[in-house]
Amino acid sequence: MSDATSALRNSSMCRQLSLLARGELSARALTESYLGAIERENPERNAFWVIDQEGALAAADAADLRRARGEPLGRLDGIPLAVKDNFDVKGLPTSGGLVGRRQMVAEQDAHCIARLRGAGAVILGKTSLDEAMLGTTGAHPTFGHVPHPLDAGLAAGGSSAGSAVAVAAGLASAAIGTDTLGSVRIPAAFCGVYGLRPTQGEISCAGVLPALPRLDVVGPLARSLDDLTLLLQVMSGYDNNDPRSRRRRVPLALPDWEPGSLRCGVIADPADLGAEPEVVAAFDKAIEECGRLLGKISSVPLAGFELPRLRRAAFLMMEAGLASLPAAELEGASARLQSMLDFARCRTAVHYAHADRALDSAVIATRRLFEQVDVLLLPTVPQPPPPLGAEEPSHLADFCSFASLAGCPALSLPLPGQLGLSLVGPRGSDLRLLELGEVIAALLGNEQE
Amino acid sequence: MSDATSALRNSSMCRQLSLLARGELSARALTESYLGAIERENPERNAFWVIDQEGALAAADAADLRRARGEPLGRLDGIPLAVKDNFDVKGLPTSGGLVGRRQMVAEQDAHCIARLRGAGAVILGKTSLDEAMLGTTGAHPTFGHVPHPLDAGLAAGGSSAGSAVAVAAGLASAAIGTDTLGSVRIPAAFCGVYGLRPTQGEISCAGVLPALPRLDVVGPLARSLDDLTLLLQVMSGYDNNDPRSRRRRVPLALPDWEPGSLRCGVIADPADLGAEPEVVAAFDKAIEECGRLLGKISSVPLAGFELPRLRRAAFLMMEAGLASLPAAELEGASARLQSMLDFARCRTAVHYAHADRALDSAVIATRRLFEQVDVLLLPTVPQPPPPLGAEEPSHLADFCSFASLAGCPALSLPLPGQLGLSLVGPRGSDLRLLELGEVIAALLGNEQE
Repeated sequence: MSDATSALRNSSMCRQLSLLARGELSARALTESYLGAIERENPERNAFWVIDQEGALAAADAADLRRARGEPLGRLDGIPLAVKDNFDVKGLPTSGGLVGRRQMVAEQDAHCIARLRGAGAVILGKTSLDEAMLGTTGAHPTFGHVPHPLDAGLAAGGSSAGSAVAVAAGLASAAIGTDTLGSVRIPAAFCGVYGLRPTQGEISCAGVLPALPRLDVVGPLARSLDDLTLLLQVMSGYDNNDPRSRRRRVPLALPDWEPGSLRCGVIADPADLGAEPEVVAAFDKAIEECGRLLGKISSVPLAGFELPRLRRAAFLMMEAGLASLPAAELEGASARLQSMLDFARCRTAVHYAHADRALDSAVIATRRLFEQVDVLLLPTVPQPPPPLGAEEPSHLADFCSFASLAGCPALSLPLPGQLGLSLVGPRGSDLRLLELGEVIAALLGNEQE
Repeated sequence: MSDATSALRNSSMCRQLSLLARGELSARALTESYLGAIERENPERNAFWVIDQEGALAAADAADLRRARGEPLGRLDGIPLAVKDNFDVKGLPTSGGLVGRRQMVAEQDAHCIARLRGAGAVILGKTSLDEAMLGTTGAHPTFGHVPHPLDAGLAAGGSSAGSAVAVAAGLASAAIGTDTLGSVRIPAAFCGVYGLRPTQGEISCAGVLPALPRLDVVGPLARSLDDLTLLLQVMSGYDNNDPRSRRRRVPLALPDWEPGSLRCGVIADPADLGAEPEVVAAFDKAIEECGRLLGKISSVPLAGFELPRLRRAAFLMMEAGLASLPAAELEGASARLQSMLDFARCRTAVHYAHADRALDSAVIATRRLFEQVDVLLLPTVPQPPPPLGAEEPSHLADFCSFASLAGCPALSLPLPGQLGLSLVGPRGSDLRLLELGEVIAALLGNEQE
């Protein structure tokens, strides 16, 4: 493996697209480069559970042929992607992290996978996640834990663990994950990559195994913000087959902010929500570094949102939804998962209704907050990555859950120390967050190609 | 009581607005006329549970004063309305049909009530409904059943029973109700008035006691379609405080249909869904009478929707939601209600999650249907009004439930025999339904002022 190959594998997707467009790189070479790296590294990294070498090379050759023949090209033509193993990809199994589903082969692509393929993307394989999507560390008692790409003694974060590792370790151009309470953003922060939770309803969830439909979204992980924007735009679109899919009012919100008129909120009480001192210090430093850009800053306490209570409400709803799956799909559940399913089976329908209404209250509170500010800044995670295999800290998703509960978009930027800085905005403000993220990333000294 | 007064009380709201505008009628006279009729007739009709004579007269006098002074007027200035007793109206109790809530006085107006007042409307009082909103006949074991306005031996229909009776019997200019699975449209059909279920999210439900938030909407009942349109437009608007409130993409769908290009669906199997022969006959006759208008008609079977199963799913969710209310509000529940609450308490959170996902499937199926047709015609009710106090037919709401499950707008027009013809369209097509309804009503010989 040459340094040049490694540099290429770790460059941004947009950079690779420009090399492909100039004819300086073939889709086959790029795909082979990733497949080779996966073959060498995946046994230790556990990023991929399914590798589709044959399908990937065929798709890459088709992309090269289109280019050679001068046929119309998609916006991702020849780009190798990693896809979390809860998306249906035709011909491959969709485990959703359930042992009992590992042989269940999908008959067709999920809506967003079909859109990616339609744009010319190459699917390398399916990436690892927490058991039943119910975790934040990338832990799986049967399929193995997912170690951190820089320190195998630490956890990569979850549940989109393998997708984050594939991006961080240069095993794919970019990756697709899902985010219910933070499953894109938590591993993105721990692994030092960019992760986007789009506005709910923007990307169809049809063909994605649900964790909790009222909170689930599809989200990209990448090594650059431009990559996230492009993946968002390719995957977005109304779909009848997702009951929460919405037609856009505008082509996302226009990136209409100006530094002088931006109303920026900064979380007032990160320590009260469980952020460790080093997280508070890194967050404060980041806010200070981009202070002038942020214009008028107001301090926003989140204690009133009772995020831990809402997390418990959402977990009950997720557990109940999983428990409603066919028994065969739940076979082989670990003792931890079994106890979560049993918990849901012992709660009544009244408890579920109560939880659902608690989430309604959070939507209202968040809508009110975004009358006061255009963007809210907060840490993505309350601590650095925990040790691999250690018990999962219960509050790891609490900062991320804030955006999830109201269906708001959220962007996580890497901060030093395997931490993340999150930008959250009102529904539809995805492009504004991405643009603001570019400027903040530059101020923080993150390298962007 | 003169014939002229009775004719005025039974004229359309828009006609009354024109008399008010021309100075031929005062808000005080109109309000007194309704209050007098309520005083005489309500003991037998049981349409109103709360009559706010003092408040109504004060609001009427204020409207007259605005007119006398040439001040800006609202679009409903001086119009007396009846409001279902599950809306918060400042200073009046909101029972929601629960004995234990009868003394709970609202501290502020529901969002849509505030909009009505802002437009100059006069609130006459609060109208009767089924116990806990969980019924379709206007039955209440404690507060009394609501008899049909034309035959006291029959039921008025529910749950917005008193609102429909107030409109049919000339006890208000128009009325406001709520519709979860058909609670506006069923009593509208039985009582021979017009009822609209708007697109979900169009009118805020903030300040309305919920039956099932994911299906609840606010809807008007009136003696003319123009009245429904005006009430819809006054009450519509985004509200942060309703988690399902949506900003309109367009000011409702433009009334853009033409008879020649309308794709009209007609239910193929009304008898299979429980419609009695006289309902099928009346429906077929109506379709025949407006056949030419409807252009290309396709026959749409609804058996695949499994509406009875979805009704049971929605009922479990409603019962669970009610059972999550504070115990004091549930005191005095009838044996029937108590058994429904107990049922929900015995079902698990997994059952609730399963029901919620069944409703998701219905949303998808309905969205697909409305790719094929622009409007679907079906009976509003499967039978004429049942005897007062008889056991409730379990399938009374099944035809109405179709629109509810997907948040679609639905309009019920009166048909002879205390029946109704329903027009259902995709989300946002409210104005198109109202315009089409005008033409169909004219073809059916319904009188419109």
